[in-house]
Amino acid sequence: MIIPVEWTDEGVKMLDQRLLPTEEKWLMLKTYKEVADSITDMVVRGAPAIGVSAAYGVALGAQNFVGTNMADFEEEIDFVSQTLAKTRPTAVNLFWAIDRMNRTFQTAKADGKSISEIKQILIEDSKAIHEEDIESQRLIAKFGGELLADNSTVLTHCNAGALATGGVWGTALGVVRGAVADGKSISVIADETRPYLQGARLTAWELLQDDIPVTLITDNMSGHVMKKGRVQAVVVGSDRIAANGDVANKIGTYMVAVLAKQHNIPFYVAAPLSTVDLNCPTGEEIPIEERNIREITHVRDIQLAPEGIDVSNYAFDVTPNDLVTAIITEKGVARAPYSESLRKQFEE
Amino acid sequence: MIIPVEWTDEGVKMLDQRLLPTEEKWLMLKTYKEVADSITDMVVRGAPAIGVSAAYGVALGAQNFVGTNMADFEEEIDFVSQTLAKTRPTAVNLFWAIDRMNRTFQTAKADGKSISEIKQILIEDSKAIHEEDIESQRLIAKFGGELLADNSTVLTHCNAGALATGGVWGTALGVVRGAVADGKSISVIADETRPYLQGARLTAWELLQDDIPVTLITDNMSGHVMKKGRVQAVVVGSDRIAANGDVANKIGTYMVAVLAKQHNIPFYVAAPLSTVDLNCPTGEEIPIEERNIREITHVRDIQLAPEGIDVSNYAFDVTPNDLVTAIITEKGVARAPYSESLRKQFEE
Repeated sequence: MIIPVEWTDEGVKMLDQRLLPTEEKWLMLKTYKEVADSITDMVVRGAPAIGVSAAYGVALGAQNFVGTNMADFEEEIDFVSQTLAKTRPTAVNLFWAIDRMNRTFQTAKADGKSISEIKQILIEDSKAIHEEDIESQRLIAKFGGELLADNSTVLTHCNAGALATGGVWGTALGVVRGAVADGKSISVIADETRPYLQGARLTAWELLQDDIPVTLITDNMSGHVMKKGRVQAVVVGSDRIAANGDVANKIGTYMVAVLAKQHNIPFYVAAPLSTVDLNCPTGEEIPIEERNIREITHVRDIQLAPEGIDVSNYAFDVTPNDLVTAIITEKGVARAPYSESLRKQFEE
Repeated sequence: MIIPVEWTDEGVKMLDQRLLPTEEKWLMLKTYKEVADSITDMVVRGAPAIGVSAAYGVALGAQNFVGTNMADFEEEIDFVSQTLAKTRPTAVNLFWAIDRMNRTFQTAKADGKSISEIKQILIEDSKAIHEEDIESQRLIAKFGGELLADNSTVLTHCNAGALATGGVWGTALGVVRGAVADGKSISVIADETRPYLQGARLTAWELLQDDIPVTLITDNMSGHVMKKGRVQAVVVGSDRIAANGDVANKIGTYMVAVLAKQHNIPFYVAAPLSTVDLNCPTGEEIPIEERNIREITHVRDIQLAPEGIDVSNYAFDVTPNDLVTAIITEKGVARAPYSESLRKQFEE
């Protein structure tokens, strides 16, 4: 059972995902700044896992506050929250978790709680966010697992597994695990997912741990394997879903979606409702992170491209809602028109 | 001016493309076996370059024959040809060049030439194949360059440049160079082309040499850059074109073609007629090479994927003719229906 981030009495325990699959190293983060750096540097990644980590970051920042003045405490929490919010722009779960922690702070303050009581309340709420995330995934696994046929192969892109979430199930890989838990025989084709290789390093590693058959391919092979009839469903996670059902996810997801459509293969998105941003009307408004070009030009110290080359390194893309067969959340399976079905899930 | 393979008095001089872009090392191949290994190990790659190299391999095998008996000489040439033919399965230029060299041998033998005369005739014919290849590319550049608009950006996949051919122009990059030679301002977006990174290592290197603006992306970004309106045309090379215009090319080409169609971007294939295989009715009959999985699981000695993972490593895919806007050869611009237009080019 994989749980990539955990609250402990010593600090936030976090699996260093940069070193997988060849090394399994756990870090103990003692400050909110260390948590923020871990998100920026992709020690932890995946929208739900970033959300859980940010909540723990706020709790850690509060815990480490040494003053006795409530206004100073509030200022510190605000500063911690702003620092954490600047780590990465696309995954909305980050902002969702920070907002929730701040609302919890405001409620506790309004209720006249002391600084030390609020510190404890924030720790409890961050742990609750984590538990709710795992419970959401369990439900996503259940609802999504029902959509997969026995003896079928799922293609997935990037890692939307236990490693990308609070742990245990995962979102896209939760759907696979849900089907397997129902007794279905499912195998997975994992895109390697350049440049950061989350598919090769993380999805492959995770599924090997669970004895779920997995075959690794390069990103540019997904069209070919679909054409050969090797894929019965595509399941991916998401970093942010707009109110109209447009889906921001790891760069390359859009290509997979276009190819799935071309081959009449269902394209499912699995994500908790905390990934849905009703304030974003369409995918056009979702900010797309561009990352350091060294991720593309080098693998560790090995130079792959000529010196001085121009590089574009978009970390995400947007898949328009008309390419999405269904969105699986902890509330069930939403289908088009998503502006209605997603809103309804929030109201339930 | 890049010429990746050359006949010299000492043997076949070949640029080791495995070491680019960080090292420019030339090998001197003294035997046909060294030429065959260079093709298998991808010291040289790209269909037209493989064809030229194989022709030189036959010439080298003949030159190194030490006997005086014509039957033994013929047997040796046959053995050399078979060895070279087993190096790689997909690029038809390999078989085309070997066949031509064998026909030249048979003609010379029938004409009563001596072994030493035939050795010289084979060297001359291999050099002629090389010169004709460069002339074909010059014409491809001319015809193809006319199709590109001024101030446009071309997306290309893999390396179909001077490095992939007998040299100077290239096929897909020949089209770019042809447009630039016409005074047009053209920039290129190069897919890195996993797993062998011909785009990052070779296309980027080649275009930097020529001061043609180039931006490197990962393979999974091509959909996103098309969606953003950054691409006005796609131009790729080919390893084998079936009689009906189905195009085998580097893995990932099919995905780019589907995406080009989705975005109404013209998808051009540039290749000499020696790449067209009229004996192959459709793309279904083109053998698709599968290569060592270590190309995907490792970059040099760095392990990217978990030990024991299953991997598919298809080196090529087939783009159906209905996704191909035009095929540019040394005879001109062929359009659908290709079964007619390609056959007509052979008859001209």
